[in-house]
Amino acid sequence: MIRIGIVGYGNLGKGVAKVSKLHPDMYLQVIFTRRPPTAIDSPTRSDGSQIPVVSITSALDWQEQIDVLLLCGGSAADLPEWGPRFAAHFNTVDSFDTHAKIPAYYRQMHEVAASESHLCLISCGWDPGLFSLTRVLFSSILPQGHGYTFWGRGVSQGHSDAIRRIPGVVDARQYTQPVSQAVEIARSDRPSALGAREKHKRICYVVAQAGADLAAIREAIVTMPHYFADYDTTVTFISADQLAAEHGALPHGGFVIRNGVTSEQTRQIAEFSLRLASNPEFTASVLVAYARAVHRMRARGEVGAITIMDVPPGLLSPSTAEDLRAQML
Amino acid sequence: MIRIGIVGYGNLGKGVAKVSKLHPDMYLQVIFTRRPPTAIDSPTRSDGSQIPVVSITSALDWQEQIDVLLLCGGSAADLPEWGPRFAAHFNTVDSFDTHAKIPAYYRQMHEVAASESHLCLISCGWDPGLFSLTRVLFSSILPQGHGYTFWGRGVSQGHSDAIRRIPGVVDARQYTQPVSQAVEIARSDRPSALGAREKHKRICYVVAQAGADLAAIREAIVTMPHYFADYDTTVTFISADQLAAEHGALPHGGFVIRNGVTSEQTRQIAEFSLRLASNPEFTASVLVAYARAVHRMRARGEVGAITIMDVPPGLLSPSTAEDLRAQML
Repeated sequence: MIRIGIVGYGNLGKGVAKVSKLHPDMYLQVIFTRRPPTAIDSPTRSDGSQIPVVSITSALDWQEQIDVLLLCGGSAADLPEWGPRFAAHFNTVDSFDTHAKIPAYYRQMHEVAASESHLCLISCGWDPGLFSLTRVLFSSILPQGHGYTFWGRGVSQGHSDAIRRIPGVVDARQYTQPVSQAVEIARSDRPSALGAREKHKRICYVVAQAGADLAAIREAIVTMPHYFADYDTTVTFISADQLAAEHGALPHGGFVIRNGVTSEQTRQIAEFSLRLASNPEFTASVLVAYARAVHRMRARGEVGAITIMDVPPGLLSPSTAEDLRAQML
Repeated sequence: MIRIGIVGYGNLGKGVAKVSKLHPDMYLQVIFTRRPPTAIDSPTRSDGSQIPVVSITSALDWQEQIDVLLLCGGSAADLPEWGPRFAAHFNTVDSFDTHAKIPAYYRQMHEVAASESHLCLISCGWDPGLFSLTRVLFSSILPQGHGYTFWGRGVSQGHSDAIRRIPGVVDARQYTQPVSQAVEIARSDRPSALGAREKHKRICYVVAQAGADLAAIREAIVTMPHYFADYDTTVTFISADQLAAEHGALPHGGFVIRNGVTSEQTRQIAEFSLRLASNPEFTASVLVAYARAVHRMRARGEVGAITIMDVPPGLLSPSTAEDLRAQML
């Protein structure tokens, strides 16, 4: 059994607790939380036993009982602190997704992990993660061509949070949606470069305070730099009840498309797509499978920080290399 | 530059000669052929220089000038002989695709390669190859679910050859085509296991000898065990001219679909698809990218036989790990 632990019991941590039950070789040892542990209902393993929920401050007491620790925190505030702190004591997997800060985070994690002989997989999930892997795979095989990543239709938690910070907003849900004409161009015989506005639109459902200036909120959203200004954005005001009833789930997905040629007129199109009813549960599923690989790579003697690019895919499977060759190849 | 060589100058070898021009770090050193070398028009590199075409019998003279040798032969007769023979002297990449014989071929290749300190990647291409990688990736991440592989629409060379061996047949082209209802089930909220006949149909275009018994040919095709008996097969007789005009290309493609759940009612669907105008040129593209990885893994000291499951995806790219983290992750 591979003994895993969770730090952070939000959507992602709860996803790991759920999906780890589907892997017979995974044993979820413990959950570390910042909240008072007694405030959390202890979830169960597939054998019905309860998973201890303990304070994050006593994590080091569990060092000998955890093979891989899954850092289930946010990239803005949690992981920059948790990553190096836990890399000093555990093998880890995280989903750090602030693209611009990945090189710096990698260096920091690598230094700690290598000096303490741990193996730490950073920026794992589906993007960054499986989509990154696919971009590298596709562009390496078809160097001459156009590459595209489309996200959605799905809830972007970062964009939803940005709307919530506007004065007068009570709650919000932002859906990112690929523009269908752009997806058609990406798959067509005449692919071309596409800008941000051409590829995605942003659809916002907003609950405003009673008496708030709706026009001002709408304007604050559609002109927000980085998040919305470069996109066609629609804003719809709804009630809190409607938001809860119709927008409670966290679906997501997307496509990575490579549209290349190998010789004159010889078009080769590769595509990877995800259609996810729950973004956090799928991300959790990726983390758990990669935790298996981290455990095996550490057992082979590898240490330091790695990314999904460094992991041989066969190590993700509970099957032996021999069985994979016989049954999956 | 990575110096590669080709053994066998059929469709696949010609594909490698074409696509290697698209990789600035690849230098196609030499082509080995069984035919009289003077009978072959020497192709050129991207700098306009001619690639020497020499007899397969003098391959060992080139040992010091080749980093990775690409074995571009058939799985029935060529690779079982070429594989172990060249693994003794070169690092190799091949596309051995007789699924049932892969474990035995692996053992044979591993023994020779390990004892002679070479690194040999077997069964690379898209299936076996990228599709195998995807099946392992998807089933490891979503252990609870249904997995599907669909092939086509595309020309199956094995099935075309089987038709050509029937008395009275001059030439033939067999298209494998997914049944659209089956693809819908695979992507739906109610996935289920599907049998061979439900998943694919087989469409045959046959050129018969003048005066041949067409009904007998048709019967011989549709009742042929393994190849056609388990499928709905249509047979259309056409002229040699029509075959040449309308069925000269070798398109192919397919889908790998994983339709899983991570908790009650939470459906997660992952899909990988290829739409290929030229099957041999795409397979060649995969071999060339993986030759880059083989060269790097050998430089790290790895020897023996490996499969696509053993290759960290980042090694496929000409970019450094640092650049991949900054730009592709």
